[in-house]
Amino acid sequence: MSLNPPVRLALVGAGRIGSNHAELVARHVPGAELVAVADPTPNAERLAADLGVAVVERSVEAVLAQPDVDGVLITTPARTHTDLVLQAAAAGKHVFVEKPMAVTLADADRAIAAARDAGVVLQVGFNRRFAPGWAAARAAIDAGKVGAPQLLRSVTRDPGPFSADPGQIPPGTIFLETLIHDFDALCFLNPGARPLRVTALADALIRPDAKHSGHLDTAVVTVEFDNGAIATAEASFSALYGYDVRAEVFGSGGMVTAGDGRASDMTYYGPDGIGIDTARRDTELLRDAYLAEFVAFTSAIRSGTPAPVTGEDARTALSVALAAIRSASTGAAVKLADIALEVAS
Amino acid sequence: MSLNPPVRLALVGAGRIGSNHAELVARHVPGAELVAVADPTPNAERLAADLGVAVVERSVEAVLAQPDVDGVLITTPARTHTDLVLQAAAAGKHVFVEKPMAVTLADADRAIAAARDAGVVLQVGFNRRFAPGWAAARAAIDAGKVGAPQLLRSVTRDPGPFSADPGQIPPGTIFLETLIHDFDALCFLNPGARPLRVTALADALIRPDAKHSGHLDTAVVTVEFDNGAIATAEASFSALYGYDVRAEVFGSGGMVTAGDGRASDMTYYGPDGIGIDTARRDTELLRDAYLAEFVAFTSAIRSGTPAPVTGEDARTALSVALAAIRSASTGAAVKLADIALEVAS
Amino acid sequence: MSLNPPVRLALVGAGRIGSNHAELVARHVPGAELVAVADPTPNAERLAADLGVAVVERSVEAVLAQPDVDGVLITTPARTHTDLVLQAAAAGKHVFVEKPMAVTLADADRAIAAARDAGVVLQVGFNRRFAPGWAAARAAIDAGKVGAPQLLRSVTRDPGPFSADPGQIPPGTIFLETLIHDFDALCFLNPGARPLRVTALADALIRPDAKHSGHLDTAVVTVEFDNGAIATAEASFSALYGYDVRAEVFGSGGMVTAGDGRASDMTYYGPDGIGIDTARRDTELLRDAYLAEFVAFTSAIRSGTPAPVTGEDARTALSVALAAIRSASTGAAVKLADIALEVAS
Amino acid sequence: MSLNPPVRLALVGAGRIGSNHAELVARHVPGAELVAVADPTPNAERLAADLGVAVVERSVEAVLAQPDVDGVLITTPARTHTDLVLQAAAAGKHVFVEKPMAVTLADADRAIAAARDAGVVLQVGFNRRFAPGWAAARAAIDAGKVGAPQLLRSVTRDPGPFSADPGQIPPGTIFLETLIHDFDALCFLNPGARPLRVTALADALIRPDAKHSGHLDTAVVTVEFDNGAIATAEASFSALYGYDVRAEVFGSGGMVTAGDGRASDMTYYGPDGIGIDTARRDTELLRDAYLAEFVAFTSAIRSGTPAPVTGEDARTALSVALAAIRSASTGAAVKLADIALEVAS
Repeated sequence: MSLNPPVRLALVGAGRIGSNHAELVARHVPGAELVAVADPTPNAERLAADLGVAVVERSVEAVLAQPDVDGVLITTPARTHTDLVLQAAAAGKHVFVEKPMAVTLADADRAIAAARDAGVVLQVGFNRRFAPGWAAARAAIDAGKVGAPQLLRSVTRDPGPFSADPGQIPPGTIFLETLIHDFDALCFLNPGARPLRVTALADALIRPDAKHSGHLDTAVVTVEFDNGAIATAEASFSALYGYDVRAEVFGSGGMVTAGDGRASDMTYYGPDGIGIDTARRDTELLRDAYLAEFVAFTSAIRSGTPAPVTGEDARTALSVALAAIRSASTGAAVKLADIALEVAS
Repeated sequence: MSLNPPVRLALVGAGRIGSNHAELVARHVPGAELVAVADPTPNAERLAADLGVAVVERSVEAVLAQPDVDGVLITTPARTHTDLVLQAAAAGKHVFVEKPMAVTLADADRAIAAARDAGVVLQVGFNRRFAPGWAAARAAIDAGKVGAPQLLRSVTRDPGPFSADPGQIPPGTIFLETLIHDFDALCFLNPGARPLRVTALADALIRPDAKHSGHLDTAVVTVEFDNGAIATAEASFSALYGYDVRAEVFGSGGMVTAGDGRASDMTYYGPDGIGIDTARRDTELLRDAYLAEFVAFTSAIRSGTPAPVTGEDARTALSVALAAIRSASTGAAVKLADIALEVAS
Repeated sequence: MSLNPPVRLALVGAGRIGSNHAELVARHVPGAELVAVADPTPNAERLAADLGVAVVERSVEAVLAQPDVDGVLITTPARTHTDLVLQAAAAGKHVFVEKPMAVTLADADRAIAAARDAGVVLQVGFNRRFAPGWAAARAAIDAGKVGAPQLLRSVTRDPGPFSADPGQIPPGTIFLETLIHDFDALCFLNPGARPLRVTALADALIRPDAKHSGHLDTAVVTVEFDNGAIATAEASFSALYGYDVRAEVFGSGGMVTAGDGRASDMTYYGPDGIGIDTARRDTELLRDAYLAEFVAFTSAIRSGTPAPVTGEDARTALSVALAAIRSASTGAAVKLADIALEVAS
Repeated sequence: MSLNPPVRLALVGAGRIGSNHAELVARHVPGAELVAVADPTPNAERLAADLGVAVVERSVEAVLAQPDVDGVLITTPARTHTDLVLQAAAAGKHVFVEKPMAVTLADADRAIAAARDAGVVLQVGFNRRFAPGWAAARAAIDAGKVGAPQLLRSVTRDPGPFSADPGQIPPGTIFLETLIHDFDALCFLNPGARPLRVTALADALIRPDAKHSGHLDTAVVTVEFDNGAIATAEASFSALYGYDVRAEVFGSGGMVTAGDGRASDMTYYGPDGIGIDTARRDTELLRDAYLAEFVAFTSAIRSGTPAPVTGEDARTALSVALAAIRSASTGAAVKLADIALEVAS
């Protein structure tokens, strides 16, 4: 397939993850070109200068007005995602939006409809689907090697020590921004099945002093699927040994696991035993996954095929997250059907 | 320490696990002697002949009447354990009883009281505490390397394919006989903490046809502890790849895992990839653990020190199992305090 | 660092490995552009069309005559490398040449001198230095974690089954083209030390029927270094389980290993045990390494700094290979000093 | 099989390894009894008291004169082994002798003949054959999973730091006492093949100051077999990370490896990466192997079947060690046929 002309992308949001994505798109995605950066802060100029991007804007509107922009990468704070998806779709731009695409189901529906009506690609940043281990696990499942999934597990532990200000973290973040990866991964690894019911336990174990203000930094969520499979998702904001994401699918035919946290295949044998380097950041451990998702996004734009991770996928993961939030506060299991109804009303 | 004279033990119950224990005690535990076997079936004669044991009895009473028996190993079906503990204690015999020691808290209390009143050692068969990986994990925790435990996991998957007759399996077995190992392991790996609340999900995923009769073969249980730690226990009756028991403890200072299912340190690299032999049976994977628990039992008898796994430990694990049974049937979380109250009434 | 204007590279030799390199440079190396392809066969057109490269030539001269070519990648058969390095240097082009840069020390000297005199970058394709595990191993050595290297090992096993025609493989290939990677890796992992003496054993174990014609497909070489370290290099043309490259450095302070052959971090547990996917090709297992070496080459051209793998490195590895060839035929150890003398005469 | 009456064994040599063996035999080998200990030092009394052994002698003659001793374990210094084998055989006692059984081929022949003539079991202490990983590797080879062995490797690294007095270590020790394990393991893992030719490199890298007196602490030996397979054996006296024994067999059908140095299946994830405990001693890492060899010895005595490791096996490994010693001093390859001839003369 010819990669000419290039797909021209603009970045909206030049923070930590936006800068990572910009660098990958600008330098490492064949057939993609980063043509503009928008951010209300001087990060925009710095990043554009680093990457040799000519167009720098303070506002998203200015970027969306550029006719030579084919698509945007939305990497702003979570609560702004839906409106930006709508704006971009209205401008006829293809959209890659970081998770969560929305924080209410109504917003998710609006985003999906907007992209559909505008006929643009809408892809959501569930990077784990593109990580080699997860993709290989799914391939093994598709090949029937695991049989019918019965017990699943997905883990996300952010690298520690936790140093953020709990007061700056919106309520629900552990479900809406961290575990949402796991909820999507569990759906990805249980293909064709739908989540039915969610039970969540959460606490402030890392910063118990912040619990009174609603801070939650540790959580365990169980998800029951319509094929009988029972899944567990687990998150912590502070893994001292590095960034730890793993998955496990146990079924009637065997088990498959993904994720080992290794930074390389080097092993050190020293006076204190055998040691393995762990990855300290998501952008290190999942670099290949991030790269692959942008290759896929670019390819979807070029070929006019659907994105491999859709707005509907984002809506499903969000519904689990919302159910988990309610369950964590009520202490009872929450049916997704009840979450869905709520939206409809 | 001199191992003379030997500690003389009798086996009560010559089934699969009893035969395993008998062989270990008769041949591999220094300072122990297997002097009698009791079983109502011809298994007793067969086993005694194999191991060169002179005394064979059909009844437990006959064995308990023997003055030269110091202690008994009770490996009969679960529902008979408590009464046998009481009989043995009344006869002044030290007692090793397979899990579960009891299936009601009242029975657990009776067993504990009987052993205490008789001044005999009472040890319960939570073998995982003696497995090298689990013991090393606990040592790492005791050494402060994991910090405060926050997230724990314990898994038991029996080797498949599942071939038993669901109709022959008493209700609650997955909690009372399988997961009870995990409940104890979670307490062992969260030293000093007490379980507070239990939520259980269970289903008949292996034999859905038997679900109507109450059969459960797959379960996920969450346990909340009084130090804030959240634990997950998972069980399945049919792991096609072999016997799979594992544990994971994540804390403020790091993580420790135990269990890898390897049958040996041999690795095979062939046309289909890299392959590792897995253990097919508990008696293979945990042989060292079984051996160590009998060495510990013998040593406790000899030295008059308490057993390393007590009746109180069994009562705690049982209370979690009972809460899990109730939670699985009601769909709601169950407080251990409520389970305890019920017993008292 | 600005990556503009791009470094413009031409490929010379559009075979299997040339096509791999071309695709990486054309699509995945930031700041590089593949502007021409030269090959006497229709491979040239095919590859250029795939990658959208405008200039296709049958002859290397035509490519070297292009003023807008900054550097060339030489991926032709081994025996043609030196002459092409000389031609390219004479044309003022920077040179990346696949190993071996030369097959005689005199040729190696000519290549080194030509590049030096022309003031062009000369980089040799020892990709293993750029593989994450090897780079991490070297970093651990540089950090003193291994102490003084004492025993080293490097392994190369090409994926099997071996299907080439032994009659088409030049004599010495296992040393000059396969093990030369290991000889360089051993020098890389024993920094500052020089090889002194070589002993080689080689045989035709995969194709014993071809032994009479000089075919060798299996070899073990020991290399003694001037710091006392003893190294072993091992090669086979047919590993049924995939491409297998590994290294091990044991020293006074510990040991470090690199290479695990895993295609991903997915693990499968099935009825036959635990299985891991292995990589079937060098271009799969070492993709990151290939990419990194082209990034380094591009960066050296842009910044005017020396290549990270020099002609001198190639000469050292070649001298070990030549000594190994002689040792394999005479059955005696060969001093590198004697190999060097031979060249001088 | 009935284990009564017990096989009565005596220990000759109550040093470090003798004490290990005595404890295993006295307490952990079913159907064996340790009935006497002989040692010229007070170690004898100490050990006998610890294990409850009644008979303690200063001289081997006194032990051999005891009619109720069925067999002896010879764990004295290497140079005394052959004479003790001869004495024991002459007394009609079965013999387990630690490696090396002899340090000259003539002595090996004398030992073999003596045992044969006396009709006693003669077993040599090549424990690695009994280690689970090695046994499983051999089983995989026997099952044809590796195909024809082509490249083999065996490694022995004693735990460091090295603290012995080089002056107290007899010349040739690294070959005769350390690598002899590897030479036997290579034969065990290349079933049916015979070693033909040996090349050895050795140095004093740990204690270069002791090299002038003939001290060697690091060695690499290649062994060519009559089936074409090329093997490497490697030894060091000082592995800072613990006791490290491993094997690798690569063949036309795949590869098998044994040995991973893990002390347990516990893994620790901490701020410095992932860590695994290594075994610090042979008696820890190979405990199961030691135990299995004594079970096998006892069983051979009881059943009258040949020992699983014979005097001939010891002679073969010794011939490789002697060839290695000569090769290390001459710098040339040494044919085993020449070593054999020497003996005959």
